[in-house]
Amino acid sequence: MSQSSSDRIVDALRTWLATAPAGAKLPPTRQLVAQFEASPVTVQKALRALVAQGAVESRPGVGTFARAVRTVQPRDYGWQTAALGSPQHRIPRSASAALRATPNDVIALHSAYPDPELLPGRLVRAAFARAGRSEAAVSRPPAAGLPELQSWFASELGSASPAGLTPPAASDVVILPGSQGGLGTLFRTLVGAGRPLLVESPTYWGAMLAAAQVGVQLVPIPSGPDGPDPDDVDRAFAQTGARAFYAQPNFANPTGGQWSAARGDAILDIVRAHGAFLIEDDWAHDFGIASDSTPLAARDDSGHVVSLRSLTKSVSPAVRVAGLIARGPAHERILADSRAQAMYVSAALQAVALDVVTQPGWRTHLRALRPQLAARRDLLVDALREHAPAAHLDAVPRGGLHLWIRLPDDTDLPRLARDCEDAGVVVAVGDDWFPAEPAGRFLRLSYAGARPDAFPDAARAIGRALEGQGEGSRPPGRRTA
Amino acid sequence: MSQSSSDRIVDALRTWLATAPAGAKLPPTRQLVAQFEASPVTVQKALRALVAQGAVESRPGVGTFARAVRTVQPRDYGWQTAALGSPQHRIPRSASAALRATPNDVIALHSAYPDPELLPGRLVRAAFARAGRSEAAVSRPPAAGLPELQSWFASELGSASPAGLTPPAASDVVILPGSQGGLGTLFRTLVGAGRPLLVESPTYWGAMLAAAQVGVQLVPIPSGPDGPDPDDVDRAFAQTGARAFYAQPNFANPTGGQWSAARGDAILDIVRAHGAFLIEDDWAHDFGIASDSTPLAARDDSGHVVSLRSLTKSVSPAVRVAGLIARGPAHERILADSRAQAMYVSAALQAVALDVVTQPGWRTHLRALRPQLAARRDLLVDALREHAPAAHLDAVPRGGLHLWIRLPDDTDLPRLARDCEDAGVVVAVGDDWFPAEPAGRFLRLSYAGARPDAFPDAARAIGRALEGQGEGSRPPGRRTA
Repeated sequence: MSQSSSDRIVDALRTWLATAPAGAKLPPTRQLVAQFEASPVTVQKALRALVAQGAVESRPGVGTFARAVRTVQPRDYGWQTAALGSPQHRIPRSASAALRATPNDVIALHSAYPDPELLPGRLVRAAFARAGRSEAAVSRPPAAGLPELQSWFASELGSASPAGLTPPAASDVVILPGSQGGLGTLFRTLVGAGRPLLVESPTYWGAMLAAAQVGVQLVPIPSGPDGPDPDDVDRAFAQTGARAFYAQPNFANPTGGQWSAARGDAILDIVRAHGAFLIEDDWAHDFGIASDSTPLAARDDSGHVVSLRSLTKSVSPAVRVAGLIARGPAHERILADSRAQAMYVSAALQAVALDVVTQPGWRTHLRALRPQLAARRDLLVDALREHAPAAHLDAVPRGGLHLWIRLPDDTDLPRLARDCEDAGVVVAVGDDWFPAEPAGRFLRLSYAGARPDAFPDAARAIGRALEGQGEGSRPPGRRTA
Repeated sequence: MSQSSSDRIVDALRTWLATAPAGAKLPPTRQLVAQFEASPVTVQKALRALVAQGAVESRPGVGTFARAVRTVQPRDYGWQTAALGSPQHRIPRSASAALRATPNDVIALHSAYPDPELLPGRLVRAAFARAGRSEAAVSRPPAAGLPELQSWFASELGSASPAGLTPPAASDVVILPGSQGGLGTLFRTLVGAGRPLLVESPTYWGAMLAAAQVGVQLVPIPSGPDGPDPDDVDRAFAQTGARAFYAQPNFANPTGGQWSAARGDAILDIVRAHGAFLIEDDWAHDFGIASDSTPLAARDDSGHVVSLRSLTKSVSPAVRVAGLIARGPAHERILADSRAQAMYVSAALQAVALDVVTQPGWRTHLRALRPQLAARRDLLVDALREHAPAAHLDAVPRGGLHLWIRLPDDTDLPRLARDCEDAGVVVAVGDDWFPAEPAGRFLRLSYAGARPDAFPDAARAIGRALEGQGEGSRPPGRRTA
């Protein structure tokens, strides 16, 4: 967020407060209005922010005063070490790289979220305004979700169901506060602590995070642009006795891979033969470029595929709403777990999501998004080919938000990332997407972040960093960003 | 939510669609406008709802058509039973009674949520409108929360800290999507599956739900209007080796009990002596009547108290935002777990929460709320004394939203609940709040729900149902509601 006018006033007043004695009175509002050449509304907003920060206190009718700042002494919390013990399941730390916030002046190719210019911002803003005027702002929805939003998720999947299969019903849908909580719920209910779960390798780090939290045992299956080899999947089920396979059949994160219809059917047959669940994470449903996402869940009505689709990335990161579709007893167990975890999802966020996706403008937005993603993808691909020839792309992804780049086997990845960062380019190192030892040196580069005009510069920086790898190691600590 | 004009059109068109052949064309919009005497906007809204429900499809420029309804065949999902196995931790079902939705014409004394008229609706609506216009609608906040909202939670607790203690810092705060997820996170990180957790008995059913999901072993300690006996707490820590105690020291749900300052200090000393955590659920912070909620966390800077305060009940059920305050290594482990569970909380909801609680109108609202709650509480207490003398109240609660009523030991509770419901009064049976066998026959009656004017009628119905207990059992199945 860029600095607003009230932020400027907050900063100036904080500087003044840093040396003011406790209880000192701030100048009256009209004086601040004149001093900062701002409107009274802006000044009031700044004062409210300072109250919220605990820096000042307001006494109505009297004025605004500097608050006494109490000295903070360092405390020894060592006793907690014994009380906490070792964690039952260790949650990886590194996996957070893709969420790192960065200053505006760097080129953020690590980002997991699309640039706001790729979001239907106008629809989202109007929907929030409408939600504020509706009952949704002050009411509590049913635990499974707003019925109309359940219907929408069911009909979206149903519209891809071939004739002869029973499409999902609205009552098969559970609305969740984002897909992350849904992954936790699915791993807890369909797998369980200590039990095996098949995953593609590489796979989404958020899924590994959820798996670590639940304590499930990951069983990696190599996967690439065409998805995993069905024989590998069959063998892994047979050897481990696993009853579930977590996968992203369309535009997988990070590889961008998409399973062909035949591959999908073969894997579905194997899943069915082992009496297992396929947990389908349709995260990039709205990010098709050269093809659409056709969920495998649409080709199954036997309850073997449980599908998860989030609107967080395509509607707005502020609209934490996902739909989970499951049939049979699994649905019941999932609903009970998701209620124990989150009780219900804000009716306001559900109303906003429903409002956006049922506007005619949503389809228009999605149609316009496709060529934008295509142009950004091609721009980054071309720039890398020209300026970083050592960076290899197995296949141009047919959808999604990222390129999955293979680097020479002797690449010093941490050093490469540091060198890129010194040059103002933030990249995500591929290691975080591997459930076991990485199968090579990879970068995940997003073409959906801010400043696509800077892609050529970014590719040049990556190219230079790759060329610089031969030049002997640098002294540690030169890292600047 | 009452039926809107577009709902009426949806209902009428669905009736028509029920017998229309697949592909049948709906009348054009202008004809529907005339037929339903509605505006074009309303008709369009109804058509969008039907599209969302999958009942019709819209072909721009051509018209709107009935969708082919595919026959839904009953499926056998029996194979899932083997795949799912027995759940690792069984989540209780009964605990959902307090969340039950009921028709408008019953008197809902079971409700866990305050009547909308007790919420700052105007502030919430204005805040949603502002959030829609701000960056919060389309941006992603830091994982721990919006810094200003962290500061607000810290300063709220800090303002109750005695001199000489270090108040919490903004960085000690983790913003969570409601307190339910927070309880799961706390039980997972501070306790762990299979390990003991002390709880008051009775205690909040949502906490038992979260405990069941994590698989912690509950150790009940009897508690009443003055909280638990410190000797009981000491003995339970010593006997079980527990390292955590979950409690609601202010206006406990369901008993309404409040620990005195001396009782709180005594229990804090015991918690410290056992090197343990007190997990303080300050759920009713904004619902003080005869006294304020003074969190025990304000009297501890040694990291022994971890406090949780939700804004969901006092701001709006749509604003699923809670603040968790923890210091030391525990804070780090909690933050990692909450990220694995929910990634982050919608910036829009955080902005709405911050906006509401930093408006001058928030303080005004809280000041006005106190006499409203007092009047409702007293009305229900008086009505029960007059019309249901067999319903015994140990103590009038000094805050919170409920009365905890003890009934004669030979009361047939399920029958009582049915009889009340037949008379249009929904009550919550006390059994759901006990972690083990109930210590008696109890009802939890909310005085914060809709229709306080009907409290005398409700008390009369409860009184009659209690008197009717002697009259021999009724045939089963007479239940009507």
